[in-house]
Amino acid sequence: MFEGVNASEGIGIGTVVVAVEPDLTFDPVTIPEDQRTAERERYQFALGAFCKKTEAQAEHMKETVGENEAEIMVGHIAMAKDPGLTDQINSLIDNGVCAEQALVEASTMFENMFLAMDDEMFRLRASDIADIRTGLLCELLGKEVVDLSTLPPASVIVVHDLTPSMTATIDKDNVAGIVTEVGGRTSHSAIIARALEIPAVLSVVNSCAAMRPGARAIVDGTHGQVILDPDEATLADYTAKAETMAAEKAALEAFRGKETATADGVHKVLAVNIGGPGDVPAALEHDGEAIGLFRTEFLFMDATSLPTEEEQFQAYQNVALALKGAPVIIRTLDVGGDKEIPYLKLQKEDNPFMGYRAVRYCLDNPDEYKVQLRALLRASAFGDIKIMVPLVTCMEELRQVKALVEECKSELDAEGVDYNKDIEVGVMMETAAAANIADLLADEAAFFSIGTNDLTGYTMASDRGNDKVAYLYSWYYPAVLRAIKKIIVSGVEKGIMVGMCGEAAADPLLTPLLISWGMEEFSVSAPSVLRTRKTISQWTKADADALEEKVIQLKTAEEVKAALEEASRK
Amino acid sequence: MFEGVNASEGIGIGTVVVAVEPDLTFDPVTIPEDQRTAERERYQFALGAFCKKTEAQAEHMKETVGENEAEIMVGHIAMAKDPGLTDQINSLIDNGVCAEQALVEASTMFENMFLAMDDEMFRLRASDIADIRTGLLCELLGKEVVDLSTLPPASVIVVHDLTPSMTATIDKDNVAGIVTEVGGRTSHSAIIARALEIPAVLSVVNSCAAMRPGARAIVDGTHGQVILDPDEATLADYTAKAETMAAEKAALEAFRGKETATADGVHKVLAVNIGGPGDVPAALEHDGEAIGLFRTEFLFMDATSLPTEEEQFQAYQNVALALKGAPVIIRTLDVGGDKEIPYLKLQKEDNPFMGYRAVRYCLDNPDEYKVQLRALLRASAFGDIKIMVPLVTCMEELRQVKALVEECKSELDAEGVDYNKDIEVGVMMETAAAANIADLLADEAAFFSIGTNDLTGYTMASDRGNDKVAYLYSWYYPAVLRAIKKIIVSGVEKGIMVGMCGEAAADPLLTPLLISWGMEEFSVSAPSVLRTRKTISQWTKADADALEEKVIQLKTAEEVKAALEEASRK
Repeated sequence: MFEGVNASEGIGIGTVVVAVEPDLTFDPVTIPEDQRTAERERYQFALGAFCKKTEAQAEHMKETVGENEAEIMVGHIAMAKDPGLTDQINSLIDNGVCAEQALVEASTMFENMFLAMDDEMFRLRASDIADIRTGLLCELLGKEVVDLSTLPPASVIVVHDLTPSMTATIDKDNVAGIVTEVGGRTSHSAIIARALEIPAVLSVVNSCAAMRPGARAIVDGTHGQVILDPDEATLADYTAKAETMAAEKAALEAFRGKETATADGVHKVLAVNIGGPGDVPAALEHDGEAIGLFRTEFLFMDATSLPTEEEQFQAYQNVALALKGAPVIIRTLDVGGDKEIPYLKLQKEDNPFMGYRAVRYCLDNPDEYKVQLRALLRASAFGDIKIMVPLVTCMEELRQVKALVEECKSELDAEGVDYNKDIEVGVMMETAAAANIADLLADEAAFFSIGTNDLTGYTMASDRGNDKVAYLYSWYYPAVLRAIKKIIVSGVEKGIMVGMCGEAAADPLLTPLLISWGMEEFSVSAPSVLRTRKTISQWTKADADALEEKVIQLKTAEEVKAALEEASRK
Repeated sequence: MFEGVNASEGIGIGTVVVAVEPDLTFDPVTIPEDQRTAERERYQFALGAFCKKTEAQAEHMKETVGENEAEIMVGHIAMAKDPGLTDQINSLIDNGVCAEQALVEASTMFENMFLAMDDEMFRLRASDIADIRTGLLCELLGKEVVDLSTLPPASVIVVHDLTPSMTATIDKDNVAGIVTEVGGRTSHSAIIARALEIPAVLSVVNSCAAMRPGARAIVDGTHGQVILDPDEATLADYTAKAETMAAEKAALEAFRGKETATADGVHKVLAVNIGGPGDVPAALEHDGEAIGLFRTEFLFMDATSLPTEEEQFQAYQNVALALKGAPVIIRTLDVGGDKEIPYLKLQKEDNPFMGYRAVRYCLDNPDEYKVQLRALLRASAFGDIKIMVPLVTCMEELRQVKALVEECKSELDAEGVDYNKDIEVGVMMETAAAANIADLLADEAAFFSIGTNDLTGYTMASDRGNDKVAYLYSWYYPAVLRAIKKIIVSGVEKGIMVGMCGEAAADPLLTPLLISWGMEEFSVSAPSVLRTRKTISQWTKADADALEEKVIQLKTAEEVKAALEEASRK
């Protein structure tokens, strides 16, 4: 058995395929003076081919993996074309160095520079440069990069590192598991594996040498274990486990089409979080009743310049129509923090999570923001669209957004364009400040939706992307529970709808507390809809209240979690 | 009149001195093959001389400006000695390029690379490289760098950019003001000017050309204005203003030696924040009654390895003895965030303020932490030392620190070493989480001290170093006021001492609210002691309560500030 980092949940059973990287050795030759121009052209040709291939991969990845990962490939093109790199290579070629050697020397210099920096982000860039060098060398030497598009079914990929360029070729239906020799939970490989829902164990030392191609392997991505050549008993055991997981999933089917309600009949709304119109079919297929969070970043990240009012209108209208009158909460642009949109040319910040992002950016660029607000208003004529403002920390921000909405309404009135005059403007409750003044905000917001991810991070002053402080990133800490309670209770008291669209909404341990406090809408990822509906159905308000009364007095996260686990229902 | 960035407060009146940078042009010559080894040695010699000079400057700066700025110079030495740079230069020299040209080419390549990065930190490094290049070129060409050590009295320095190497030579007694052509409030120049308490206006376009050496100039660092050749009326006006500022300062002398108390006789403690034993004389000279915050970072930043228990003990004992029994609250190591200690080799983080810092680092390195706790306990035999834990977000952290203190006590008991058995362990209340659970923490903490700087930043999710969101960094926002109130009221209810050691403690507008909530200790910078004592003396509890009742209902920072300003007393 091999131990590694549990990077993507689930159990995969299959056959080992060791992805061998191509042999990229070459003899460095000296180029005679009269052939150097041709050698430069040879490099340019390879660069062109590389960029074209990478562009195609980025396109493919956008559909198979996701926007963010596709962006990495687009970044590779930019880095490969960097004038600093090209100048250096050309100048080496002009001195008689062959293109391969010039590429290796110049790129290694950049790579070492990045590696020398004390910054995780830059060290990641070093591995990007290595990936680009491999791709360019393959072009120059006529070799193929590792291609994962034609694997046999039930393959367990074993590879030194799953680079972005390899992932671009993966056909996920044939991959039972992924094992790598390097990488942690936040590495490219991990992110990709989770996005593809493939069980993965990373940082398994020496796995490429130790795992024989063709051997049978069990990849337990939940516990970070890989079992090679399992005996019959172990295989049966894991097969059973995998089947249990599948069976539990199947059993949830009983909740399909059912009303979402507590055991004593209090109605709740089970909504889905989506990233764009493309996610609506999955949301409906998983039996979502509404959209609790429509992130609009995709519209901006997909583009090379600001999307027009018409482009935005169509996206919002599509979702509104598909939901047939069910509520659609659309969050206005949440740029910044960990979300970059290159053409907005935002400056890098020392602490981006505490920087110029979301509503701060929007209110500072009201003309851009009004394009989105107008598009939202126009789409509101076609369904129950609600506007949600992210990262609010003070009443001033909510008032300014509402004033801009009124401005847009007047404009549309003057233009004779139809929209929902009673459109609701609510607040995404995700900062400690918003929790502190929830009672004040509830007077002027039409609804609240709690963003538990950022609320937890800001309250605990813990960046969830930072492994060293990940233990503090938990909503079981009394400080976070109190913030959530304050928000829900304040909203309920003032009679506005309170929902939750952060990951905690799908945490079954938390469900009874949310019921006790009176939360109305649970907005979860599509695959979590049925399980959340089941959990809600297992609790009466009275039982939930009794548990809440006990839990809210506890002083540590450990005690809270233990109490919730003890009370949890299967 | 010239407008610029108001980078350092105050009014300075003096004579313009334009700091002219040396002429560093040279003829690039080709070095014959047999002289290249000598040329390499010439460069090595210049590098050695540069490093030696820079080291001396760093030493000098440590005393005149401060640790942090001295660190910049130490960084210059490391960058100048970087093997990547040296290799590049040597290889150019080996190809016949002269040392000056090799230096310019190699350093420019690095500089451009840094400039191309989208990261403020790296762009700052580019200007460091430019500064190093200037220094090295001066050595190679036998020129002098700009020397500001021999200015006539009342000089107004006008310079393109105040580089760290120039600052190292400044004699602050002779400098009335600083004017630069580049830089913002967070630039090196600004930080240095504030540290030296010299009025400064930065980013004054074309000032080196426009300001005639020998002209009279008024530098209004508070409003960001420079007046050249003022007429008599203007000069009289500004002289009067400068005198008023001096007179107000003199009037506060009436409060020296007085008890700190409200108008109705409620006693308060007026303490001082210090960075090390060296700050104690100023604290006492300004009439401080106690030490409300002793930052211990200096001990760690000054060193090249962890300070020993004995070294720490002596520092703490010195302060305890100097305070003659008055309370000394010592904050345990607050590393991370914006405070770097190179030899701890902490990784750079994407969001350092929400990362691995302060108590998180200490509890993860208990053996290191116990060295500090043992030193604190031993010093507690010589005065009223209290231990304060920074960045607490949960009960677990406080309990773990207290358990380590108990471990250290047992060790000292076994060794027969004396210490205060009743030493208090309190919490620096500076996270949203700590505010949320203040009532719980008050059960197990001996005291609270509110760190309003971080508390404001975390609550508002706003990095105060980030100009783009600086408008959100204000304790007048109701969300922050409520957090402060919750902390004070919770502590008072449970009968523990509550103080404040953040900058808000010295904000006269806030004083009545703090009195109303029952805060006991105001810990301010030494120069603010008398003014804060005066403000406290102007309020009765009843008046403060009446104002609080009104202010706490307001919904915006603007309304809060206006109400506090209206009520403020001169």
